[in-house]
Amino acid sequence: MREAYQDKLDQLANQLADMSALVATAMERATKALLTADLSLAEQVISGDAEVDDARATVEEQAYALLALQAPVATDLRTVLAVIHAAESVERMGDLALHVAKTARRRHPHPVLAEEVRGYFADMGRIAVHLAREVEGVIRTQDVKRARALEETDDELDDLHRHLFSVIMDKAWPHGVASAVDVTLLGRFYERFGDHAVSVAKRTIFVVTGQMPGYGGSLGGEL
Amino acid sequence: MREAYQDKLDQLANQLADMSALVATAMERATKALLTADLSLAEQVISGDAEVDDARATVEEQAYALLALQAPVATDLRTVLAVIHAAESVERMGDLALHVAKTARRRHPHPVLAEEVRGYFADMGRIAVHLAREVEGVIRTQDVKRARALEETDDELDDLHRHLFSVIMDKAWPHGVASAVDVTLLGRFYERFGDHAVSVAKRTIFVVTGQMPGYGGSLGGEL
Repeated sequence: MREAYQDKLDQLANQLADMSALVATAMERATKALLTADLSLAEQVISGDAEVDDARATVEEQAYALLALQAPVATDLRTVLAVIHAAESVERMGDLALHVAKTARRRHPHPVLAEEVRGYFADMGRIAVHLAREVEGVIRTQDVKRARALEETDDELDDLHRHLFSVIMDKAWPHGVASAVDVTLLGRFYERFGDHAVSVAKRTIFVVTGQMPGYGGSLGGEL
Repeated sequence: MREAYQDKLDQLANQLADMSALVATAMERATKALLTADLSLAEQVISGDAEVDDARATVEEQAYALLALQAPVATDLRTVLAVIHAAESVERMGDLALHVAKTARRRHPHPVLAEEVRGYFADMGRIAVHLAREVEGVIRTQDVKRARALEETDDELDDLHRHLFSVIMDKAWPHGVASAVDVTLLGRFYERFGDHAVSVAKRTIFVVTGQMPGYGGSLGGEL
């Protein structure tokens, strides 16, 4: 019984890790579509999002079934609930990759990004993809040190996001309002993508250690 | 035993409804702070967000305790999980009200909004507050009709949000990029606030009817 339960839980964690890998690839393609105005890559991300949504629904159903049939307690219960939360966060990361891809498609064949900000998005995209891959690794290994490092990497993304704003807010920005609006929303998509990755890492730390990092009265104020 | 369980569940729902009322008030004050450049109202929202975070942590802890001690199944299990999800969404609504208030504070004593877009934010704010109050009502009454109506009201918010974009994207927008960036982010905060309200309504419909509205392969693609 106990062994069957552990098998089910391992299986759930694997599905969640696979989902994170899907989302990493989606963000990689979306960023490339954005940087190179590649319509077919953008379309791949857009049509691929249903797979992430399906994976989330499957994970959630199986987690519910596990709760209903096995009524886990203590750490096991915490783990199943963390999986449900994580599936939600990872699906949301997929949605944000989708938003990036849709922006690239909407402006096609014109590039969305002015030359001054391309480098920021190349860097933010690289970090975002790395974060999603680390989410996958953290779920597979339950490595708390790696989960904590992920938070620091997200700080780099936040720094880039802040600098990006100073570039478009600069009085000398020559590309007009429409372009600044695109850049503003895109910047926010990457920033939120990172926040969701951190939220999964924090829940994992909670499961492994029993303590929520940076608790401050909330189990997920950054969500 | 069964009665004590039902009492606990009612208590949880009440706490969640109270949390929604807090968030409605926060968004009301944040919108007024934004429209009138009222610093003290903005500060109230900013310092008040900790109360929402605490309420969420309490709801989540009690829901976990209920799962661990009572191991509910079927509808009862679904209800507790819906409460956990809803608490997360409502906390996030509080964060979005907080973001609006912080924007008002950051620009003080200057008004954030140009005359052309003030009306949009007055309307979006009114609808957002209404949505949060309806979330409160739906949680208290479990009224499916009211939950469905909430989705339609959110469509009005989305329409306003789209029109808002056409105003700032207009070549004749005379207020510069910094102002357009503020309006872009603020518009997104209201839109997401509405999305989270809808997500709570959908989960409530799911609990009452056993069916997720607008399923489409996902239990919450709009989250």
